[in-house]
Amino acid sequence: MNSFGKMYRTSIFGTSHGPAVGCVVDGCPAGIRISADRIQGQLDRRRPGGSEVSSPRKERDRLILLSGVLDGRSTGGPIAGMVNNKDTDSKAYEIFKVVPRPGHADFTAGVKYHGFQDHRGGGIFSGRMTIPLVISGSIALQALEEKGVHVAAHSLRIGRVWAKSNPPIPNIERVARKNDVGCADPSTAKLMKAEILDAKREGDSVGGIIECLVSGMPAGVGEPFFDSVESELAHLLFSIPAIKGIEFGAGFQVAEMRGSENNDQFKIRNGRVVTETNNAGGILGGITSGMPIVLRVAVKPTPSIAKTQRSVNLREMKETELEIVGRHDPCIVPRAVPVVESVVAAGLLDLMLAGGIF
Amino acid sequence: MNSFGKMYRTSIFGTSHGPAVGCVVDGCPAGIRISADRIQGQLDRRRPGGSEVSSPRKERDRLILLSGVLDGRSTGGPIAGMVNNKDTDSKAYEIFKVVPRPGHADFTAGVKYHGFQDHRGGGIFSGRMTIPLVISGSIALQALEEKGVHVAAHSLRIGRVWAKSNPPIPNIERVARKNDVGCADPSTAKLMKAEILDAKREGDSVGGIIECLVSGMPAGVGEPFFDSVESELAHLLFSIPAIKGIEFGAGFQVAEMRGSENNDQFKIRNGRVVTETNNAGGILGGITSGMPIVLRVAVKPTPSIAKTQRSVNLREMKETELEIVGRHDPCIVPRAVPVVESVVAAGLLDLMLAGGIF
Amino acid sequence: MNSFGKMYRTSIFGTSHGPAVGCVVDGCPAGIRISADRIQGQLDRRRPGGSEVSSPRKERDRLILLSGVLDGRSTGGPIAGMVNNKDTDSKAYEIFKVVPRPGHADFTAGVKYHGFQDHRGGGIFSGRMTIPLVISGSIALQALEEKGVHVAAHSLRIGRVWAKSNPPIPNIERVARKNDVGCADPSTAKLMKAEILDAKREGDSVGGIIECLVSGMPAGVGEPFFDSVESELAHLLFSIPAIKGIEFGAGFQVAEMRGSENNDQFKIRNGRVVTETNNAGGILGGITSGMPIVLRVAVKPTPSIAKTQRSVNLREMKETELEIVGRHDPCIVPRAVPVVESVVAAGLLDLMLAGGIF
Amino acid sequence: MNSFGKMYRTSIFGTSHGPAVGCVVDGCPAGIRISADRIQGQLDRRRPGGSEVSSPRKERDRLILLSGVLDGRSTGGPIAGMVNNKDTDSKAYEIFKVVPRPGHADFTAGVKYHGFQDHRGGGIFSGRMTIPLVISGSIALQALEEKGVHVAAHSLRIGRVWAKSNPPIPNIERVARKNDVGCADPSTAKLMKAEILDAKREGDSVGGIIECLVSGMPAGVGEPFFDSVESELAHLLFSIPAIKGIEFGAGFQVAEMRGSENNDQFKIRNGRVVTETNNAGGILGGITSGMPIVLRVAVKPTPSIAKTQRSVNLREMKETELEIVGRHDPCIVPRAVPVVESVVAAGLLDLMLAGGIF
Repeated sequence: MNSFGKMYRTSIFGTSHGPAVGCVVDGCPAGIRISADRIQGQLDRRRPGGSEVSSPRKERDRLILLSGVLDGRSTGGPIAGMVNNKDTDSKAYEIFKVVPRPGHADFTAGVKYHGFQDHRGGGIFSGRMTIPLVISGSIALQALEEKGVHVAAHSLRIGRVWAKSNPPIPNIERVARKNDVGCADPSTAKLMKAEILDAKREGDSVGGIIECLVSGMPAGVGEPFFDSVESELAHLLFSIPAIKGIEFGAGFQVAEMRGSENNDQFKIRNGRVVTETNNAGGILGGITSGMPIVLRVAVKPTPSIAKTQRSVNLREMKETELEIVGRHDPCIVPRAVPVVESVVAAGLLDLMLAGGIF
Repeated sequence: MNSFGKMYRTSIFGTSHGPAVGCVVDGCPAGIRISADRIQGQLDRRRPGGSEVSSPRKERDRLILLSGVLDGRSTGGPIAGMVNNKDTDSKAYEIFKVVPRPGHADFTAGVKYHGFQDHRGGGIFSGRMTIPLVISGSIALQALEEKGVHVAAHSLRIGRVWAKSNPPIPNIERVARKNDVGCADPSTAKLMKAEILDAKREGDSVGGIIECLVSGMPAGVGEPFFDSVESELAHLLFSIPAIKGIEFGAGFQVAEMRGSENNDQFKIRNGRVVTETNNAGGILGGITSGMPIVLRVAVKPTPSIAKTQRSVNLREMKETELEIVGRHDPCIVPRAVPVVESVVAAGLLDLMLAGGIF
Repeated sequence: MNSFGKMYRTSIFGTSHGPAVGCVVDGCPAGIRISADRIQGQLDRRRPGGSEVSSPRKERDRLILLSGVLDGRSTGGPIAGMVNNKDTDSKAYEIFKVVPRPGHADFTAGVKYHGFQDHRGGGIFSGRMTIPLVISGSIALQALEEKGVHVAAHSLRIGRVWAKSNPPIPNIERVARKNDVGCADPSTAKLMKAEILDAKREGDSVGGIIECLVSGMPAGVGEPFFDSVESELAHLLFSIPAIKGIEFGAGFQVAEMRGSENNDQFKIRNGRVVTETNNAGGILGGITSGMPIVLRVAVKPTPSIAKTQRSVNLREMKETELEIVGRHDPCIVPRAVPVVESVVAAGLLDLMLAGGIF
Repeated sequence: MNSFGKMYRTSIFGTSHGPAVGCVVDGCPAGIRISADRIQGQLDRRRPGGSEVSSPRKERDRLILLSGVLDGRSTGGPIAGMVNNKDTDSKAYEIFKVVPRPGHADFTAGVKYHGFQDHRGGGIFSGRMTIPLVISGSIALQALEEKGVHVAAHSLRIGRVWAKSNPPIPNIERVARKNDVGCADPSTAKLMKAEILDAKREGDSVGGIIECLVSGMPAGVGEPFFDSVESELAHLLFSIPAIKGIEFGAGFQVAEMRGSENNDQFKIRNGRVVTETNNAGGILGGITSGMPIVLRVAVKPTPSIAKTQRSVNLREMKETELEIVGRHDPCIVPRAVPVVESVVAAGLLDLMLAGGIF
């Protein structure tokens, strides 16, 4: 289904070239201060056309709030928000129902929906469908901030260029949110930009890794099994198109660690129980420990590239070649950064509400 | 909540030292051939006490089926299965409510349940709670096999020792299921065993990576957004204690790839649309493509180690040392292999039923 | 939550005096023929201002489809539909936050939402929120018709006037949908209209009973326990404001029947198993039997009346009197008839999809 | 699915003649005092064999608690409880797969489960499946009592005999729970018993109405639309086999009332907002008002009767006669009284938890 969340539930709608994309967000407690400007701010960070490293598609992506907020506060009823699609040109997409693009959902959508899917601009599989995720998540971010919880993501890696892991959240807010590539370190940001432009020049694209940090989470949030913090966040993060891997804390490095290295030993600081290291990424037994949550997601290179690719003509069932013309991002990582923040916020708010902790 | 699945739903119960652990499995279609022996076979693979690389806790783990199967076939009603706990000794655990073990859920459980949790043997956070996952998953495995779908996992890495990725599924069935460490290659299996015994000798533990392969999946299973194949499987896999990372297909390697490398180009073989490579791990736009599903999970080293660790006394709020005596696995990877197979099967069956494809 | 349905899920949004009311409908299979005109037709039947027995609020209630339908067919993605609010005048409602109207949700909403609710025009508790139910249900009606299932409701009783139970469905379509009161018998319709105008003249309102019939349902739909046909339909029907009772088949009359009278004996007609009577209302053990589904709902008299009523001033915590001026329906029954059809259709489609029978 | 509840979820398992019936209850907050004796007490009220007005099937129905309660308190983990089946005799049921019993689910179960259902003793459709409802509900009753909420049901009508509506809850506890028929008035109880024995003598059965009252509910519980108090309770109550109608407050009588009669006018008593009448049954806009909840359910006469009935032979597709020998209740109403209390308690606890009010 196209909805998620037990207590803070997001139901999305729209397609890339339909009249609008949006969502209904249910379960936001009444009385939360919600600034439409702040939602717009997150939408603007995700918006294309902002720089030479993103798609030239021109969309203003102005938020329209249809319900759920009155006098700057949530009413307790469903919050509906949407953005109109303007700059659509569907002609180029007709052929992809017959000759599916490698790395895209053209083929699998055709099988699943028996050819009735809205294929224009990728339809529901388009990156534009992350707009509803950002709307829902930006509301969650504001709710979390009322409780002192802050969520911040940054580009940890783009192609061959790595930034430092685990930068201070204020640095992310001050630096990463100001540059084209979402990187918390200004000089690394330049290298990342060069890496993207390099791929672009070759008619190619490049992937990366986004890291997300959460400070201020109270301990005790999450469930031991099926609704562990990892389960909830992974479920939501894998909803973002292009994500192919997720890890928490030490992540895949745990494979090479001994228990004595990996265990985070407890200590007391300022009257609070904390751990010396944070290999667990703030989660023990599926439940928050009060330490910062740390996670990383792998983002694949944009599948739309200018290079000629091999595909098949499904109607004639024979092999063919395919050239994609159009507007694409040479790297989706920078625009995915606010999307990652958004869904992490939505997931955490959902778990806090379910645990009666909000 | 302690249940998962929209159409094939598993609700688990029990604790490590309570009378039993088990599950209710709802949504299994009527008429599926279900062999209790095959469920038992998977339970036996997971069972402790089988070898020198696992915990010496002695449990026979005999399956008791309480409902849902009649004359060897599913009835369409809920299937309840459980296993009694026998070899329990709760005395040693009293102290962990006060002095939490690093890497365990003692601390977070205490916060979440306000001290009322069943802490004996780790309670609901125990690895024994994977028994219900295996019961549920073993039923799903049998249902999937009726449709030609096969799920097989193996130990890809233990500590410093790597096996080859993506071995043939029959090799896994013939080799990996026969040795102590779940490895598909006999000579690598020996090295893995040595690696585990090495850690054990030092009173320590070691982590690893499990790879899971699925063949025979029809195309068109899964949902574009919140119920993508990745979302569903990650949700379930992160329910297995000790899992800290998940990746599909090329996984975290996509970060360093160009689009032209990562895109799987389509071709036709034997009248079917396939791809030349399988970096997508059999999933495009959240939906199965008909190619094999490939995923890997990172397993942390067992947190229970013999070495002295630092912790805190929560009652007196002061730092202290902790020594854990008792029976533990020096490496949880081998016993987690059938658990990974089980939850992958449960997730795929759930998605197939939800998509009306089973 | 403001959503319902396991496989055909409706999420509603909006308030009486906000910019719009609408819904996101998820799970509609791809390829169903969906006519926006037919949805509009059902909306028009529900619309106020059509006759002297309904509220004079002027709304055109033009359907705006935002996604999910392309070239007259469902795409398989979420269907979003909405209607703008035009004729809103919120001034009169300020006082009801302080002096709650008897029979309305003013008081309970204030408690639940701590005063942050959108109270204008009754907010989310307004009868206008049945518009999304009609949009969702009208889509379901069209899906059901593809399978030969027909849903038809009529006014069985208004105040003192009773119509005949269980009229032929074509009569309902030909007669009940054409008159002001939704009654399948023309002469009874006149008496019902007189009954309503009688109440209106006295500044009062009147209640009634709606009966809904479903023909063509295949046997085997529904679940034995929590998702019985009765459970699913009752859940949805009690979402319609003003419904206070529901019964299936013989309903409350079963209390005075002997088993030998109430049991529907099986026989064979035209090679099909049918029953001689239909006291079960087409449902045995929660599952459809293939006989017509028959249900009735009790609709309370509109709580907004012109007569002076007693209430309390919540700010000053003292008793007071209240006079409601404004536009109201003297009887809500006729306008609720298409709403009942709609939610019954949505519920049945949900169960058919969940049972793999659609 | 065979589970219900967003926050307090009950998953049931078992069949009439399988080894056991039981449930897993998830979401009970940690630290609630839970007495196994009190659960047993409710089970005993439901148990057959207690009197000449119930089935002579001999079952001790001893509760076995498998998890979730430690030292008399809920742990916060899933609570599993079950009861073994002892007095089973399945021989007589073979024929009903071929010749379905009127009023039973034999026919619909066969269609739904394609003949694979466990038909012995009615399988999952048996009244024994209300045992898990009682276990789950008895836990909820104890949780509610900690908050001052009391739930009490009584036999309002059996066949031709009516008792007084809305008796004081202590009367129900003192009188109704002590006599064979669950009636709050001793002299009416005698008439009810005579009515049942009358039907029994004739080889027939008789139906009735159960009324349930809830005192102490805080205002503000429930949701405006799909999770209204009426929706939630109706969903659960229609899970009880034999229930064919439900009404709240004035119920079906609202059809003949004017708005001025039906509206409950507000007043202040002891500093609290109350209403003069309670036609709304304690629910306005789907949300509790703080007034007592009042509801009534119609219970059909037991379908198993000694009289010869007409049915069909499904194998030969021809009409035939059927005689049912065995043990049945001439009236199910008295034994259903504690089941109604149970599911009402479970539903209210679920809504309180979902609303963050518990």
